[in-house]
Amino acid sequence: MILDSISLVSWIGVVVFAISGALVASRKEMDIIAFIFFGTVTGIGGGTFRDLVLGVIPVFWVKEPAYLLVCAAASAATFFLAHLTLSRLKFLLWLDAIGMAAFCVMGAEAAASHGFIVAVTCGVITAVVGGFIRDMMGAEIPVIMRGEIYASAAFLGAAVFMLLRDVVARDLAILAGVIAAFALRGLALHFGWSLPVYRRRSSREQE
Amino acid sequence: MILDSISLVSWIGVVVFAISGALVASRKEMDIIAFIFFGTVTGIGGGTFRDLVLGVIPVFWVKEPAYLLVCAAASAATFFLAHLTLSRLKFLLWLDAIGMAAFCVMGAEAAASHGFIVAVTCGVITAVVGGFIRDMMGAEIPVIMRGEIYASAAFLGAAVFMLLRDVVARDLAILAGVIAAFALRGLALHFGWSLPVYRRRSSREQE
Amino acid sequence: MILDSISLVSWIGVVVFAISGALVASRKEMDIIAFIFFGTVTGIGGGTFRDLVLGVIPVFWVKEPAYLLVCAAASAATFFLAHLTLSRLKFLLWLDAIGMAAFCVMGAEAAASHGFIVAVTCGVITAVVGGFIRDMMGAEIPVIMRGEIYASAAFLGAAVFMLLRDVVARDLAILAGVIAAFALRGLALHFGWSLPVYRRRSSREQE
Repeated sequence: MILDSISLVSWIGVVVFAISGALVASRKEMDIIAFIFFGTVTGIGGGTFRDLVLGVIPVFWVKEPAYLLVCAAASAATFFLAHLTLSRLKFLLWLDAIGMAAFCVMGAEAAASHGFIVAVTCGVITAVVGGFIRDMMGAEIPVIMRGEIYASAAFLGAAVFMLLRDVVARDLAILAGVIAAFALRGLALHFGWSLPVYRRRSSREQE
Repeated sequence: MILDSISLVSWIGVVVFAISGALVASRKEMDIIAFIFFGTVTGIGGGTFRDLVLGVIPVFWVKEPAYLLVCAAASAATFFLAHLTLSRLKFLLWLDAIGMAAFCVMGAEAAASHGFIVAVTCGVITAVVGGFIRDMMGAEIPVIMRGEIYASAAFLGAAVFMLLRDVVARDLAILAGVIAAFALRGLALHFGWSLPVYRRRSSREQE
Repeated sequence: MILDSISLVSWIGVVVFAISGALVASRKEMDIIAFIFFGTVTGIGGGTFRDLVLGVIPVFWVKEPAYLLVCAAASAATFFLAHLTLSRLKFLLWLDAIGMAAFCVMGAEAAASHGFIVAVTCGVITAVVGGFIRDMMGAEIPVIMRGEIYASAAFLGAAVFMLLRDVVARDLAILAGVIAAFALRGLALHFGWSLPVYRRRSSREQE
C-alpha cells in the first residue's frame, strides 16, 4: 500500500485519537476491552460521521478494516504502556491536538467538492466528533466545552487547506492546514488562551 | 429561492432550534464558538438524523449550506443578545416548542411515502433528536424526560398532518399539523400538564 | 410472514432490548411516552447504526415498520407490568444479555460479506450500541463500562458464528453464536466475572 499524503494524515489522526480514547479508559481504571472500545470509537468516530453525512457508504473502515486492527492494537498497547507517561491528561490533550489537526484537513478534503462552507464544516465535525464522544462516554467535560481555543483551530486548519488547495500543490495545502490547526491549538494549550465567555449583564437576568 | 410551505416550516424550525441551542451555551457561560457549535448541532441535528435513516444522503445541509450559515449567524447573534431576555430558560422552552412543532411535520412529510407509522416515527424523531442532543451536551435534563407532554405533542402534529394530507390541500395539512403540535405543547407548558408516571407498587419492589 | 432463523433472532433481540429500555424508564419513574421512547430507541438503536455504517438504507425499520409497533407495544406493556418483577435491575441485566447475544450474531450476519474483521466489529457494535444509548440517556453507568465481561461475550458470539458459517448449516452457526455469547455473559453475570483493570503503577503517576 502506497500512502499518499491524505492517507498518511488520516492514519496519524486515527492512531493518536485511538490512544487518546484509551487514555480516558486508563483515567477511569477500566479493563482492556474498555480500552479497545474507547480507543476504536474515538479513532473512527469522526471519519464515520463524516462519511455518513456525505453519503460515502459503507463507511471507510468497512472498506479498509486495517483501521479497526490498528485502533485495537494501539488501544491494547496503551493498556500496558500508559503508566510510562508522567501525566496522562497532558499527554491526552497533546495527542488530541495532533488528531484534531489531522482530522480537520482530512474532513475538509473529503468534502472539498461540496464547496468551502460544507468542506470547512465537515472538517470541524470530523475533528471534533471523535473526541466529543470520547469525553461524553468518559463523563469528562468535552474538550470543545472547556472554553479553550479548539473548534476555532479546526476551523482555521480546514480553511487554510481549502484556500490553498487551488493555489499550491495539494500536499503543500494539506501540510499547511495541519500545521496551522496544530500551531493555534498548541499555542492555546501552552499559554492557556481562551475566548471571552458569555456573562450575565445584570442581576435582573435570570437563568 | 422561492419558499414553499414545507421549506418555510423547515427554516423556522432550524433557526429557533439553533437559538435554543445557543441559549443552553449562554446558561453555561461559554464562548462564542461554543454558541455556534451548540446552535448548529441543535439546528441541524434532527434533520440530519432523519435524512440518514431515510437514506437521503448527502444530508440536507450538504446540499444547501445556507442552513449552516443561518445557524451560525443566529447562534452568534444570541451571544450578543441573550441578555435581553428576562428568563433564558423560559424563552428556550418556548422556542423549543416552536421548533418541535415545525420539525414533527417536516419529518413526517419527508417520510410520507413510507406510510403512516414510519412517517409519524420520523416526525417524532426529527422533532426530538436535536433538542435531545442539545440537552445531553449541556448536561441538562432532556426536555423529553421532564415528564411534561412533549413527544406526545410531536406525535399529534405528525399524525394530524398525515391524516389530513390526502384530504385537504398540502399547505393546509402542514399548517394544521404545526398548530396542533404547538397548541398541545404550549398548553402543557403554560398549565404544567404532565402524564402520570410509573410508581413502585410496593415496598417489596426493588430498583 | 415466514420467519427464518436470523429474523427470529433479530425479533427476539429487538423485543428484549425494548423491554430493557422501558425498564430504565421505570427505574427513573417516567411516564408512558418516555417508556415508549426509551424502549424503541434501545430496541432499534443497534440495528439502525449497523445499517447506517454498512450503507443499508433506508434502515430496517423504515422497510419493516412492524418493528416500531412491537417496540412500542412491549414498552407500553412494561409500563403496566414492571412492578411484577422482583428486581427490575436484575431482570434488565438478563434481558440485556439475551438481546446482546441475539444482536452480536445478527450484526455479524449482516456484515458477513465484508470479511471476518468487519463482521465481528459490526456484531459487537450492533450488540452494544442500543444498550449504550439506553444507559447514557438514563444517566446509568453503561453496562459496557461496569468492568464486567460484556463486549467480550459479544465478540465471542460474533466470532463463533463467523467461524462456523462456512462449516456447518447456517441455522446451526447462528444458534451456536447466540448460545456462546449468552453463556459467557450469563456466567459472568452469575459469578461476577470481570477482567483485570488498569491500575496506576506508582504514586508518581498523575491522572
